[in-house]
Amino acid sequence: MKATAERVTAAVLIIGDEILSGRTQDTNLNAIAKFLGAHGVDLAEARVVGDIKDEIIAALNALRGRYDYVLTTGGIGPTHDDITADCVAEAFGVELYEHPEIIAMLTARWGAEPNAARRRMARVPEGGELIKNPVGGPPGFMIGNVFVMAGVPQVMRGMLEDVGWRLKGGAVVVSRTVRVEGFGEGLIAEPLERVAKAHPDMSLGSYPFFTPDGYGSNLVLRGRDPDEIEATIGELVDALAEAGITGPIIDPPAPVASQATGA
Amino acid sequence: MKATAERVTAAVLIIGDEILSGRTQDTNLNAIAKFLGAHGVDLAEARVVGDIKDEIIAALNALRGRYDYVLTTGGIGPTHDDITADCVAEAFGVELYEHPEIIAMLTARWGAEPNAARRRMARVPEGGELIKNPVGGPPGFMIGNVFVMAGVPQVMRGMLEDVGWRLKGGAVVVSRTVRVEGFGEGLIAEPLERVAKAHPDMSLGSYPFFTPDGYGSNLVLRGRDPDEIEATIGELVDALAEAGITGPIIDPPAPVASQATGA
Repeated sequence: MKATAERVTAAVLIIGDEILSGRTQDTNLNAIAKFLGAHGVDLAEARVVGDIKDEIIAALNALRGRYDYVLTTGGIGPTHDDITADCVAEAFGVELYEHPEIIAMLTARWGAEPNAARRRMARVPEGGELIKNPVGGPPGFMIGNVFVMAGVPQVMRGMLEDVGWRLKGGAVVVSRTVRVEGFGEGLIAEPLERVAKAHPDMSLGSYPFFTPDGYGSNLVLRGRDPDEIEATIGELVDALAEAGITGPIIDPPAPVASQATGA
Repeated sequence: MKATAERVTAAVLIIGDEILSGRTQDTNLNAIAKFLGAHGVDLAEARVVGDIKDEIIAALNALRGRYDYVLTTGGIGPTHDDITADCVAEAFGVELYEHPEIIAMLTARWGAEPNAARRRMARVPEGGELIKNPVGGPPGFMIGNVFVMAGVPQVMRGMLEDVGWRLKGGAVVVSRTVRVEGFGEGLIAEPLERVAKAHPDMSLGSYPFFTPDGYGSNLVLRGRDPDEIEATIGELVDALAEAGITGPIIDPPAPVASQATGA
């Protein structure tokens, strides 16, 4: 099997002043990255912008023109700084309308016609489809190749469940690890580079660690062709041995966190 | 005192396949955001790109032309995928050279002339200045308005200590919180928006929480003018009371983590 599968790409657009001010530690990017990887979609870029209309629209247009999918998080609540729906509609050149399903949902939830602020959460661009919110609360939406999700991590993860089936994924990327202990990156670099250059379709990275018990590096091999990955592991072990680096551990059960002494 | 201080802006460029693959949860953005805020610099945008030369150069040029400062993390180690120095040099149209201080440091550390891989870490663009690495290991560098730092969080944080004194900061942003308990964003939105519109130089955001003990929202007011912030807190409390929202807590000692039921 050759790695001829089409590469499917995505970008993430994180919207929210709270990420840029440092108030909130983002975890959505990591969750989405893992999710996309499992669906055979390559996350190629991510951007974080504040709650500023022109910035959101510019970033969205740059990303949606360039990648197969764009996933956004944040800015779909009821308050004045929740302007993601407005920006997406403007980017696509369509109007927003109040989706009757969401109005019905809000009415049932609050036992009365929703007020103006809550009605904001019912606004969906023309041509958009809803993304279910299994956690409770209003849904997200998709339009074109853009998926618009909540910023709150639990809600965002729930919405991803209704995103996965809509993605046309490529071949799933397989990740394998060769751990080297007691040798630094300065020695590992040459054999690693030699093997990496022989496999341009794969990604070979080195993630050093340093713990009280010792140091070394996790060499991570990522690719789409299982046969090529298996062969590359063999070549890497041989190349390391030639450089005097012995005792590599293939796919160690417990990963050592990457913590380098150097750069 | 009016908020007439110049706004000083920055962007962060995170470089590394491991962030986009989901292997590593980034924490550098949050650390840098807090650091810049304390120095009166507004973090206006962040981007994450993979270890791809053209992508790094394009993002770096877009950001350095637009913001007062750019801080990069990642890609300055000894392995073949560490290409940040090459990209920065190309973006600035200058050559890389081996910095004698770093060569001396590496020689002292390894007790011999460094090999080719380790020498990669000594490469600095012409016109660049070193950024000290107090954790041990090779330094970062700055050139023009770009600060190039390591990706490993402990090392990156150490390098920030040698970045701060070089930043020409604006007025420090002060952040205050008004917590409302037992009322949802759907009710808070209208009074919050009214007060926000009266203070365009400030940022007012709503960060809802939902815990087993109750729900509510942290309303965060950010601005540069302490007098205006103090006055705005009073106006917000009054506007909330008019909407029937009582018992706000100003600057609660223990922040409730933002966790919303809705969007």
